[in-house]
Amino acid sequence: MTAALERISSQRAFGGWHQRWRHESTATRCAMTFGLYLPPQVEDGARVPVVYWLSGLTCTDENFATKAGAQRVAAELGLALVLPDTSPRGEGVPDAERYDLGQGASFYVNATQAPWATHFRMYDYVVDELPTLVEANFPVSDARAIAGHSMGGHGALMVALRNPERYRSASALAPVVNPMQVPWGREAFAQYLGADEAAWQRYDSCALLRAATVPVPMLVDQGGADAFLDTQLQPDALRQAATERDWPLTLRMQPDYDHSYYFVASFIEDHLRFHARHLP
Amino acid sequence: MTAALERISSQRAFGGWHQRWRHESTATRCAMTFGLYLPPQVEDGARVPVVYWLSGLTCTDENFATKAGAQRVAAELGLALVLPDTSPRGEGVPDAERYDLGQGASFYVNATQAPWATHFRMYDYVVDELPTLVEANFPVSDARAIAGHSMGGHGALMVALRNPERYRSASALAPVVNPMQVPWGREAFAQYLGADEAAWQRYDSCALLRAATVPVPMLVDQGGADAFLDTQLQPDALRQAATERDWPLTLRMQPDYDHSYYFVASFIEDHLRFHARHLP
Repeated sequence: MTAALERISSQRAFGGWHQRWRHESTATRCAMTFGLYLPPQVEDGARVPVVYWLSGLTCTDENFATKAGAQRVAAELGLALVLPDTSPRGEGVPDAERYDLGQGASFYVNATQAPWATHFRMYDYVVDELPTLVEANFPVSDARAIAGHSMGGHGALMVALRNPERYRSASALAPVVNPMQVPWGREAFAQYLGADEAAWQRYDSCALLRAATVPVPMLVDQGGADAFLDTQLQPDALRQAATERDWPLTLRMQPDYDHSYYFVASFIEDHLRFHARHLP
Repeated sequence: MTAALERISSQRAFGGWHQRWRHESTATRCAMTFGLYLPPQVEDGARVPVVYWLSGLTCTDENFATKAGAQRVAAELGLALVLPDTSPRGEGVPDAERYDLGQGASFYVNATQAPWATHFRMYDYVVDELPTLVEANFPVSDARAIAGHSMGGHGALMVALRNPERYRSASALAPVVNPMQVPWGREAFAQYLGADEAAWQRYDSCALLRAATVPVPMLVDQGGADAFLDTQLQPDALRQAATERDWPLTLRMQPDYDHSYYFVASFIEDHLRFHARHLP
């Protein structure tokens, strides 16, 4: 166990343990907290595959942990869940007055612009530092999947598209699929990455999918009554890019569902079963 | 639809609808909010049985709604869920500085003492007013079960013991079974009911069970790592009373589980299946 890894809590859930951990991050240069669910199978000495979950705007590691009901399914399937925070946090970390920029709103990029560039390196944190830490310290394997909601759905698809050798599958609920073309993404990318839109393409799932060479199986669910559907989410853009490339994407519209955790909870079981089919 | 019943929200969840409603209560003389889950079966015109859920100290109708994952099971079993608040609330309703008295801490009694007696009539609200309202306005039947957590577990067992003709079954997670004998109950009952402990017995499940004549099937789960186990909960007192009376109680200790919603979420499926076996 790394000395710098501090356990905040450990609670029995569905026969396994839901834990919260804190550590000093090299990538984000601040203390980071993450959630970890270890399913009952680890008590038999098994190293289990991991589903990384990226949350949406304003969330911490706790929203998905307490509201999605995912531990129940992870316990059945023998999956660990790793739940990073949505940004660096704390005193000394820059923030904004608005909910869609700064703390709680990293968009999972490596920022290059002041004042963000020092701490907002969540891409490196999620792709490299956190898996390395988790795989060195807990009974998990290096078989990984990645999933997320809204801003975190963007993060999950984007990270998988850029690292197909690191993730067996990716999924998203109500993801921002085309951040370069919608207000949330354009305003955050301008702040974090600067005015040159060429630098934005590496974080745009539609752009990445058009250029991808190694397929990653993807499942996306989108609620039909989601208030952000037309302005921020626009899943048809991803569908069109996937059709052009004959990409292994299943995109399902779910009538009447909104953007909330009731939607996430209703379909998380399908997502975890999808990942389990691609994990050893 | 009663004109005074105001819908706050309605969200798709697990093929049904999770809603919040507000109404002026006759019993508590203030506006009350409750949660309602209607399972998919009502869309076929069915009137479905109802499980009433009473929450614990500090909760509103939303804690169980967002954290327990109960809608998934209710959708499968064709059960409605009705989630009352834990007390009257708002300006003009008395409160206390402490978390275990006043707003959020009714203990589901009809208070007789000042300043509580005017509004704190949650027993009447839960047993009479709310079921009458729900059965008149929603596609539910008069087949009822009642369940709860902690202070709400006390409420569920107590209400069922006093009204065996109104509830087919009762269940509780980490209930206060013997409030007359533990600090939470003694302090609240002294405030709400006065110093004469004879008046407390009608709200004490162990006392009620010893005097009960009509059996109600009961399921109780208790976490072995619950920080309140020895001081406030003491399920062995209920077990002993049940053994004396040959009462249909199943009481299960669950090693390592604490008092949190991770515990509730881990076992709510068992509780709803237990109730479904007793509901038409």
